[in-house]
Amino acid sequence: MNFTIQNVLIATVDDYATVDVQVVDGAIASIAPSLEVIGTAINGENKLLLPGFFNAHTHSSEIWQRGIIPPLPLELWLAQLYDFAPLDTEKVYLSALGTAVETLLSGGTSVVDHLILIPGKELETIATAVRAYKEVGIRAFVSPLIQDESLSAGIPSGETEQNHEPFFRSTQATLELIEEAVRQFHRPDEGVSLLVAPTGIQLCSDALFQGCIELSNKYNLCRHSHLLETKAQEKLAQQKYGCTAVEHLKRIGYLGDRTSLAHCIHLRDTDITILAETQSTVVHNPLSNLRLGSGIAPILKYRQAGVNVTFGCDGASSNDSQDLLEAIKIGSILHNVTDLDYQHWITPRQAVEMASSGGAKGLNMVDQLGSLTVGKKADFVLYDLTSLSLLPRTDPIGLLTLGRPTNAVESVWVNGRQIVANGKVTTIDVDDLRQQLFQHSHWDTKRKSETVAQLEAHYRTVMSL
Amino acid sequence: MNFTIQNVLIATVDDYATVDVQVVDGAIASIAPSLEVIGTAINGENKLLLPGFFNAHTHSSEIWQRGIIPPLPLELWLAQLYDFAPLDTEKVYLSALGTAVETLLSGGTSVVDHLILIPGKELETIATAVRAYKEVGIRAFVSPLIQDESLSAGIPSGETEQNHEPFFRSTQATLELIEEAVRQFHRPDEGVSLLVAPTGIQLCSDALFQGCIELSNKYNLCRHSHLLETKAQEKLAQQKYGCTAVEHLKRIGYLGDRTSLAHCIHLRDTDITILAETQSTVVHNPLSNLRLGSGIAPILKYRQAGVNVTFGCDGASSNDSQDLLEAIKIGSILHNVTDLDYQHWITPRQAVEMASSGGAKGLNMVDQLGSLTVGKKADFVLYDLTSLSLLPRTDPIGLLTLGRPTNAVESVWVNGRQIVANGKVTTIDVDDLRQQLFQHSHWDTKRKSETVAQLEAHYRTVMSL
Repeated sequence: MNFTIQNVLIATVDDYATVDVQVVDGAIASIAPSLEVIGTAINGENKLLLPGFFNAHTHSSEIWQRGIIPPLPLELWLAQLYDFAPLDTEKVYLSALGTAVETLLSGGTSVVDHLILIPGKELETIATAVRAYKEVGIRAFVSPLIQDESLSAGIPSGETEQNHEPFFRSTQATLELIEEAVRQFHRPDEGVSLLVAPTGIQLCSDALFQGCIELSNKYNLCRHSHLLETKAQEKLAQQKYGCTAVEHLKRIGYLGDRTSLAHCIHLRDTDITILAETQSTVVHNPLSNLRLGSGIAPILKYRQAGVNVTFGCDGASSNDSQDLLEAIKIGSILHNVTDLDYQHWITPRQAVEMASSGGAKGLNMVDQLGSLTVGKKADFVLYDLTSLSLLPRTDPIGLLTLGRPTNAVESVWVNGRQIVANGKVTTIDVDDLRQQLFQHSHWDTKRKSETVAQLEAHYRTVMSL
Repeated sequence: MNFTIQNVLIATVDDYATVDVQVVDGAIASIAPSLEVIGTAINGENKLLLPGFFNAHTHSSEIWQRGIIPPLPLELWLAQLYDFAPLDTEKVYLSALGTAVETLLSGGTSVVDHLILIPGKELETIATAVRAYKEVGIRAFVSPLIQDESLSAGIPSGETEQNHEPFFRSTQATLELIEEAVRQFHRPDEGVSLLVAPTGIQLCSDALFQGCIELSNKYNLCRHSHLLETKAQEKLAQQKYGCTAVEHLKRIGYLGDRTSLAHCIHLRDTDITILAETQSTVVHNPLSNLRLGSGIAPILKYRQAGVNVTFGCDGASSNDSQDLLEAIKIGSILHNVTDLDYQHWITPRQAVEMASSGGAKGLNMVDQLGSLTVGKKADFVLYDLTSLSLLPRTDPIGLLTLGRPTNAVESVWVNGRQIVANGKVTTIDVDDLRQQLFQHSHWDTKRKSETVAQLEAHYRTVMSL
């Protein structure tokens, strides 16, 4: 499907230009004014074309619990999340569709799904999410969430003796499962990549990290993990390793230019230097970090140290949306209160670059994705600049990233294939999806988490609450 | 126009109920299951009815500059804002319409417009905004923004000698203008109230505050002001009064249960006690406070001290939207990072109460507005719970305030009059508004503010940057 977008606004270094964009065989063939029309002509007048953004960290099946988990910090929130996690793959399918749709309609063309696996149906869970993403046509980076320690081990023991039940699946079995998933589903050329993705130092042994490194090297896979999301994890790392989590991950060789790390809130300056040296990527999830009270990640420090930063929505139970433009806005302006000097604040154009090429870098695909560049894949988004939320006309990128765009995404292409047109997803029936989500759920205000009840007293003691 | 909404979900103390709601002569006549239909029957199935929220602090004409002012702190941002402020009332009219529409479509039924007056056309500016709000049908609290000192006086002098030009209009003339506006436009029964609204201690003399108090007493007007939005204002208050701004406002008698104060970021604990004792209301503008790097208002402390708090969007150049649900979400979760104890965090239901009855309290109308109560005015909003952004079904209020509702407002009534139906404003032509906003503006990335250039060096010195 070749096409030419005519008279569309694009961002230049520090201004805008009106150009035509030719796409041939899924890649950008030419960008210049008044080009010959190749394939279908598309009217770009009063529209802005930007590279697709990356929803660089989420957990799709959390959609099933959005809006319902009360205000709790991560450790207790997680206990409630797992008590009510969906256990059938039909739900995994629907929430992956929902995550893809909301990401697309907020400017994203790629999603990194740190996918929660249904115990006993792990490969099926992965297959289901892959199927959903292929149906929608979004570029997917499926990152099966693995651990080999049980949930209670993620809370520091403090002065107390804590015994944790062994995790139900062995480290070896988990690694074999991931390798099998890679063999079956890792098809970067078809728009689906698998990542190794241990959940984080709080619930994973070194053996699991090491196994993931080996798989990553063997199959050329990117690496993903949570990192230092909470104060509790910071304490736990000291207790577990006698050093910071970043120092430990560096020592075991997990960091690098194919490694993206979600959250990164409680890092020391020396840790930041390590992230810069190893060229690791920070995925900033501002909404989740506020919602769970995890803290404000030192994003301005990362940028000053040369660490690559991009944005994620995080799972929809801790956000509780999958709106990437919301994450970009809050993830930009939030840091203005952390540094009085406004010359360090993130500008709208910097935010767009973080969300696009920053995402591509963290997934080792910056040669193919993340900017409107001849030769790169045609993953991009056309915004309707006549949407009420983007009026009156001022600076289009400022309106998009500082405003609250509503119904502003007009069209989306991934790999040159149009999957949103006139603001509607064309590849699946979204009204049917709404009906399915409705039918598979019920209004609920009275549920109680048994695990939270079990963990809460200990948590409050350890955190001195 | 009498009507009965049937089978609609409403919030009870800690749950939901499905009821019918009868409205007679603009007021709620009955709320119970299976009521007789009076007037038009409206299907409330799979919809949530909530009291209308208050956009309790904004500046409508800032819409003309949304998205364009670069990352700057308040004092410099303000200089740029004023350099490019619209000077014709046609623009005032269009931006008031835009503010009303965006407020309505995000759950608001009332707007407090701290209205920037065009010099020399002050009464005309007020008349124009009043006309726009009446046309849309939103409940309006028009608060003409007044000052009697020139802009540069708002920056602390530090060690330097600063001479400020006198403000172009005398204090007396300003007060006469406000009194004339009150005589002409203050019609609470018709949905338009005027407030006295000196911009704040940074640009107003005591004589201006005193004159406003007198007008407030004479005409039973509510009082509004900015308060301690920035560190610079905190410094300035000490320089100007030798005490905090709150202590000074208490001393001159400006505080009270009809007084609402926007921002309230840099307050001491003793100031908080004063706000509680005087029953003053804090209007929390979280997006603006982040965008301008003003700081995080100590909202959890206010709540613990018993201070009434509600939400505002603030003007659209410092936000840069007028989406009240966004302000409610961020204004709730932002504070989870300020207090480790999650038992103090704002719950979704508390957020709704702050946005509705909290707003009514601050405007001295809690006997008439702010909750679904028999006898109160029918200012309420019907949300479509089958919107993709509110699915799957979990806790409706959690989804609404923690999620990112899109196209979720189905209907809005103000004073019993329906002004939004099927997600569309029915009282004005929004497509025409879009065209007008488009035609009265142009893409702009190159503009420079002369006043910022003049003030910046001094600002950086005083703020030790």
